[in-house]
Amino acid sequence: MSFTFEPIGIIHSCFKEKFGIPRQSGLIPEAEGQLEILPPYNRPEAFVELQSYSHLWISFIFHQAMRDAWRPSVRPPRLGGNRRVGVFASRSPFRPNPLGLSVVELQGVEQQGEQIVLQLGGIDLLDGTPVVDIKPYVPYCDAIPGARSGFAPEPPGAPIELTFAPQAEATLAQLPPQQAEQLRRLIQRILEIDPRPAYHRNSVKRRDYGMRLYDFNIRWRVDAETVTLTRIEAFQEEPV
Amino acid sequence: MSFTFEPIGIIHSCFKEKFGIPRQSGLIPEAEGQLEILPPYNRPEAFVELQSYSHLWISFIFHQAMRDAWRPSVRPPRLGGNRRVGVFASRSPFRPNPLGLSVVELQGVEQQGEQIVLQLGGIDLLDGTPVVDIKPYVPYCDAIPGARSGFAPEPPGAPIELTFAPQAEATLAQLPPQQAEQLRRLIQRILEIDPRPAYHRNSVKRRDYGMRLYDFNIRWRVDAETVTLTRIEAFQEEPV
Repeated sequence: MSFTFEPIGIIHSCFKEKFGIPRQSGLIPEAEGQLEILPPYNRPEAFVELQSYSHLWISFIFHQAMRDAWRPSVRPPRLGGNRRVGVFASRSPFRPNPLGLSVVELQGVEQQGEQIVLQLGGIDLLDGTPVVDIKPYVPYCDAIPGARSGFAPEPPGAPIELTFAPQAEATLAQLPPQQAEQLRRLIQRILEIDPRPAYHRNSVKRRDYGMRLYDFNIRWRVDAETVTLTRIEAFQEEPV
Repeated sequence: MSFTFEPIGIIHSCFKEKFGIPRQSGLIPEAEGQLEILPPYNRPEAFVELQSYSHLWISFIFHQAMRDAWRPSVRPPRLGGNRRVGVFASRSPFRPNPLGLSVVELQGVEQQGEQIVLQLGGIDLLDGTPVVDIKPYVPYCDAIPGARSGFAPEPPGAPIELTFAPQAEATLAQLPPQQAEQLRRLIQRILEIDPRPAYHRNSVKRRDYGMRLYDFNIRWRVDAETVTLTRIEAFQEEPV
């Protein structure tokens, strides 16, 4: 017995690679993206009344985490990466069926000709992610604020002192002010939830990290207590 | 591009047929069931720490609602069954990918030899439902009590005056007291959320309804303002 699903849409995201993506949705409201609905599902009737909901569930495929074999236990980053829990007690992308679930803010439903695009906020989704279903978020059954949560009772992250180096400020200064401000806030938020591997966190060694956001490569340095955004560079597609 | 999923488990439910099932999970805490984990996923390591969570997300297949064709709009029972909304603005089982999503209470994880069974409460799942994934409910990202909910802002249902006819009382009296009490409460709750088709609700006509719960057929009558549980009978499997 098996079941075959087809994508109903595809995600366009500020997150162009896995490193740096928040590990749950909603943690970074500034993380925006679009869900482009694929034919034959791009029928306006299929989205009537969707805008009366502020949030959506997105069921998607962990397309960059598909493996031939599954493993019964995982080491969640939240536990420092050295304690094992059951794969079903985690939201790890490496699971028997590579199905992901995120609740996102619905900012708008846009129709242009044959195209239907949902504007989303608070995403934790990689660019190119195939989406297999969307459902409205219904607070009277979905919101259980008092649910008991084992090893992850609180959101990750804490405010950090982040300095932008002159090169990074120079790149931001070349962007339209609104885009620069949005990128600055997004970077601040991503670094606050600290995408570093758990085993780097208590290290005193200076290290450099990088990730791609929209069409920019960003680089930062963590040195004991200080975090510096060292570079923001336009991403160059490698010649094929 | 398509993705194939295999069931990791199967639901054993008090709900043996579609009619009468609450239309969202959590509405009837007394609705209990089991998730039996199928091989090769019945590995104890895969469930380590799951019991530190009180609630689970279950991604399942609407196995009795699979259709060859999808339709872009549906008529939700909550809207009286005569107003159309987009299929993606609904949780209708009839959707492009027949994927369901329910949050349920996790009452226990039981292991007996090779078997692993999760005890669940507040289910809205049909007996025999194939489950493709389970994930812990994480309140800091999943609970959004203030989310805006369009046409279904409040849970359905209202207290009703329910009378048990002598035949129904006689059947209950033959059961162990705890089972009888549980069945009585479950019936009361199911009738409070009113499984009748929307177009019957404002009718003054007396009508009889029936559904199967556990191994009982139950029958009830709605007559203007009164609801009577007329019969509770042991379900007899039809001879093959």
